[in-house]
Amino acid sequence: MSNPRQLYPLVFADVALFSVVDDRLHVLLVRRAEAPHAGQWALPGGILKPDVDKDLHGTAQRVLRGKLAVDVPYLEEVCTASGPHRDERGWSISVLYLALLPMDQVHVAVGNKIDALKWVDPFAADAPLAFDHSELLRKAMDRLRAKVERHALPLHMLPQKFTLSQLQRICEIVLGRDLDKSVFRRRLKELHAQNLVEVNGEMVRGVQRPAQLWRAADGFKFIG
Amino acid sequence: MSNPRQLYPLVFADVALFSVVDDRLHVLLVRRAEAPHAGQWALPGGILKPDVDKDLHGTAQRVLRGKLAVDVPYLEEVCTASGPHRDERGWSISVLYLALLPMDQVHVAVGNKIDALKWVDPFAADAPLAFDHSELLRKAMDRLRAKVERHALPLHMLPQKFTLSQLQRICEIVLGRDLDKSVFRRRLKELHAQNLVEVNGEMVRGVQRPAQLWRAADGFKFIG
Repeated sequence: MSNPRQLYPLVFADVALFSVVDDRLHVLLVRRAEAPHAGQWALPGGILKPDVDKDLHGTAQRVLRGKLAVDVPYLEEVCTASGPHRDERGWSISVLYLALLPMDQVHVAVGNKIDALKWVDPFAADAPLAFDHSELLRKAMDRLRAKVERHALPLHMLPQKFTLSQLQRICEIVLGRDLDKSVFRRRLKELHAQNLVEVNGEMVRGVQRPAQLWRAADGFKFIG
Repeated sequence: MSNPRQLYPLVFADVALFSVVDDRLHVLLVRRAEAPHAGQWALPGGILKPDVDKDLHGTAQRVLRGKLAVDVPYLEEVCTASGPHRDERGWSISVLYLALLPMDQVHVAVGNKIDALKWVDPFAADAPLAFDHSELLRKAMDRLRAKVERHALPLHMLPQKFTLSQLQRICEIVLGRDLDKSVFRRRLKELHAQNLVEVNGEMVRGVQRPAQLWRAADGFKFIG
């Protein structure tokens, strides 16, 4: 129950971690072990620990390290949700983070915790998430799509080395629509010449001809 | 002093309120009456009151209502700042808001509190602000400029009725550079036909010819 004399809010970091499974965008959910909402699926999250965390970003990193067997290479604050009624334990604040994981680490990441963790298509969720997490997930999706619409490159969702076709496909998966190849390649040249580095001497053999491999330039930022 | 056994963080809403004075961008500062940083200038802010505030946005609105004689028409969350050392009273979180005020309300807003409130050019600040507020101000500026770069219209900084020349000028003031008139007018037509409404029968006499007055369409949003 919400306590009308509560002096301090509860503060949580919640994370919408996106990657790609079966050529479709997926988000990581956790099954809640404890009340409130025991048994329901939610975004991974945890309470701020002032004696442990150096900032809220650190809270989010600690939450992910506690759930996943891999380090998450990208974490960005999206917004807060707050109020007296969103968590029955009291007046609470969630600071929402958007995180990205390379598609080749999806299965490694959850290890043997598949009873407590699952990757789901955010557009095919069969039930509302715990708390207001369905709305938080929508806000994280909006942020991710808005950045890719503004031509930010979600390189953190790709393997370390990738082809430009894979890069185009990951943008299409995020945006939910096909992109014109020549327009996409021209934008890459115009906007991202500094962000992409050819990996010398390494080619993968495609159906028609060998394709050049690329990697993110040092200091690359997911900014549009 | 920071308390290593502190269980709950202190939570504040801090607001960067922008408007225009003498044809230049200005931000509102408050002189702190109490420790820490007594006598120093800071962004207006206040502590979250769980027994009063319906959410953090409500905290920010309450803070502004306590300082200003007018209602602020636009308030948007920017980001959080957090950690054990940014406020000597303990582990703290500031939720930063960006707010806009019409230029014709700048002087009404502060009333007779000019010893405790001042509008300053954010680029000509003569001393660092209290806490990490200089950095928060920079982040709010970055957000404001990024939105106007993406062609969001800062109509909330204009009088209720305005000319398209005034609109171009407010964008130039925010961006800190001149804009080409024909490009600006074409973008208005392409992107903002729905957002601007001609005010019938009202014209202001300019130097050369009467200029049409406009207002924001109902439901207008400051989105690029």
